[in-house]
Amino acid sequence: MFNSRNVVISSKAKIGQNVRIGDDTVIFDNVVIEDNVTIAHHCVIGEPLNAYYSDPGYENPVTLIKANSLIRSHTIIYAGNTLDEFVATGHRVTLREYNHIGPHTVIGTLSDIQGYVKIGQYCRLNSNVHIAQYSTIGDYVFIYPYVVMTNDQYPPSTDLLGGTIGDYTQIAAHCTVLSGVTVGTNCLLSANSVIKNNIPDFSLAMGDPAKVIIDLRKFVILGKGKMYPWMYRFSKGMPWEQEGYENWMGGVKTEL
Amino acid sequence: MFNSRNVVISSKAKIGQNVRIGDDTVIFDNVVIEDNVTIAHHCVIGEPLNAYYSDPGYENPVTLIKANSLIRSHTIIYAGNTLDEFVATGHRVTLREYNHIGPHTVIGTLSDIQGYVKIGQYCRLNSNVHIAQYSTIGDYVFIYPYVVMTNDQYPPSTDLLGGTIGDYTQIAAHCTVLSGVTVGTNCLLSANSVIKNNIPDFSLAMGDPAKVIIDLRKFVILGKGKMYPWMYRFSKGMPWEQEGYENWMGGVKTEL
Amino acid sequence: MFNSRNVVISSKAKIGQNVRIGDDTVIFDNVVIEDNVTIAHHCVIGEPLNAYYSDPGYENPVTLIKANSLIRSHTIIYAGNTLDEFVATGHRVTLREYNHIGPHTVIGTLSDIQGYVKIGQYCRLNSNVHIAQYSTIGDYVFIYPYVVMTNDQYPPSTDLLGGTIGDYTQIAAHCTVLSGVTVGTNCLLSANSVIKNNIPDFSLAMGDPAKVIIDLRKFVILGKGKMYPWMYRFSKGMPWEQEGYENWMGGVKTEL
Repeated sequence: MFNSRNVVISSKAKIGQNVRIGDDTVIFDNVVIEDNVTIAHHCVIGEPLNAYYSDPGYENPVTLIKANSLIRSHTIIYAGNTLDEFVATGHRVTLREYNHIGPHTVIGTLSDIQGYVKIGQYCRLNSNVHIAQYSTIGDYVFIYPYVVMTNDQYPPSTDLLGGTIGDYTQIAAHCTVLSGVTVGTNCLLSANSVIKNNIPDFSLAMGDPAKVIIDLRKFVILGKGKMYPWMYRFSKGMPWEQEGYENWMGGVKTEL
Repeated sequence: MFNSRNVVISSKAKIGQNVRIGDDTVIFDNVVIEDNVTIAHHCVIGEPLNAYYSDPGYENPVTLIKANSLIRSHTIIYAGNTLDEFVATGHRVTLREYNHIGPHTVIGTLSDIQGYVKIGQYCRLNSNVHIAQYSTIGDYVFIYPYVVMTNDQYPPSTDLLGGTIGDYTQIAAHCTVLSGVTVGTNCLLSANSVIKNNIPDFSLAMGDPAKVIIDLRKFVILGKGKMYPWMYRFSKGMPWEQEGYENWMGGVKTEL
Repeated sequence: MFNSRNVVISSKAKIGQNVRIGDDTVIFDNVVIEDNVTIAHHCVIGEPLNAYYSDPGYENPVTLIKANSLIRSHTIIYAGNTLDEFVATGHRVTLREYNHIGPHTVIGTLSDIQGYVKIGQYCRLNSNVHIAQYSTIGDYVFIYPYVVMTNDQYPPSTDLLGGTIGDYTQIAAHCTVLSGVTVGTNCLLSANSVIKNNIPDFSLAMGDPAKVIIDLRKFVILGKGKMYPWMYRFSKGMPWEQEGYENWMGGVKTEL
């Protein structure tokens, strides 16, 4: 069904080999799509920035979608984004301008990445995640539905400061991460927590305001044993899927 | 305006009598649409599963939309879904693969049903409800905006376990229902609650973690009297709309 | 790229001068679009009410989009809405029937305004805000992501009562405002609060249920001084942007 019916592609866009484009998709100026990319139906790629509507001399910044990426239907990607190789989006994703999305990262259905956001590799943003401008997310971070990262401590202001999420951290559904907060690596933030203060590495935190409950390295579940760090028990889609995390790390264990 | 402009229908789809299809809608292989169904603009019906993008021999599972259903614009329904008669969706609904939606149930705008979910009859999922895979929802259940049901107790894992919601239960805005929890029948979960433990039938529960406040059969509002079970005072769109709940039940009263 | 490919415009719609319409947009009967309006791709304007699907004599109410408004892609505007001059929507906005949106107000991406809602001028509804039917929002109100206003105290019922938000108030991410509550002017509701009771003017409120923490006129941040009322320090996009709030008010200071 990738018959490219009613597709509009700017003459200033560059399209690689073996690229499939779904019906009714619009591709604006200066979009670069590398090989083996699939873009499904009803998408807008390279959506112009606000100046486009008023400035007759407007020139669209480059939008780069690297090889082997998969953009699902109804997704909107603004001009100025860089999507690394093997990125995937769900449906109706909105990527505002100038984000950098690392390789093999998945941005789930309905997620809204507000711009100037840096997301590392092999992250999983589940459905309906909202990331404010200037946020930074490490590698192998999983964020679950209806999590919001904010960037304005005393709204409204022009003094915007995003939060930072460390590698391997898990943020459960409905959490709110406030402006400027740093969440460490290997944390687990429990559902509906409000993160108002920095959280150290390896913390299980919960509540409003979120408090550290236990060091996850000491967190043992009856009959299951240690659950965290999770990389020793979960590998689906991760770069250590074939050999296991310990071998993949060259035998160097995370501090336990 | 159902002039079917720019509509693409697979030759392997079956379309019944008196079916209206809006502009720019795409209907994939093995979709079966029964009589008197309306599908509005910009929809994707029978969206292929992931294997479609890599397996040249991929065959789309059957997607069944039974008679008299109404699919509003920008909705995406994956292959493998069954929608029973008189189902309605709002706009931008996403139904991932292999859900079963019972008759007369409404799935509101922006809701995202993640797959392998069973929803009973005459349910009302208001706008922007997120239901994780393997969840089970009974009959006459109302779920309000920004409710999330989850399915992973120690994320990330492959050990996914959905929650269960009993008949007639009401879940207010912004609640989070955690993996594996069973909420009984005839409950009311107050706004922004986090449901970490099972909730017995007829409970008013609230908080994080949600605690039972009162048995709803004893819950009386000054000047209004008993509000629950709600079926004795609300019938709009319900099967007892004409005759009232008590008559419709053949005179058998819910235990009060 | 506003080449109006595959656009459908009812012969009963009225389109002003210098109106740009994106591809694949559908405009129904009795839509009035004034001069200098831009409507982007994949929109539905004047979406018919439910009766359209069953009543052969159905006549669409007037939908009015006043001059200089900007409707971003994938937006759905039901029949009966009035958008005043210089209104802007983000992407995938849903405006159900009979809202009135005041001049210079912005309704962010994914927001869902459920109908019969009145929103004043120069408001900023950030992404993914849900406003229940019959809600009333004053002027210069900022509402942040995943805020929900509700309208049903004992769900389900037909006794719907919206909330009211006073001028200049700021509602942070993930708040829930319950049915019938009045939030005063110049308030700041902290993230994830549940507003169950009326909140007086100039309050900082937080928690579940939200409690007043301090009068914002007495709220001083070390090294920054008074942050509220915010109009003396923030003017971007506001009518006092050129001259400052105090001059714009003719030298009359807000009670401090």
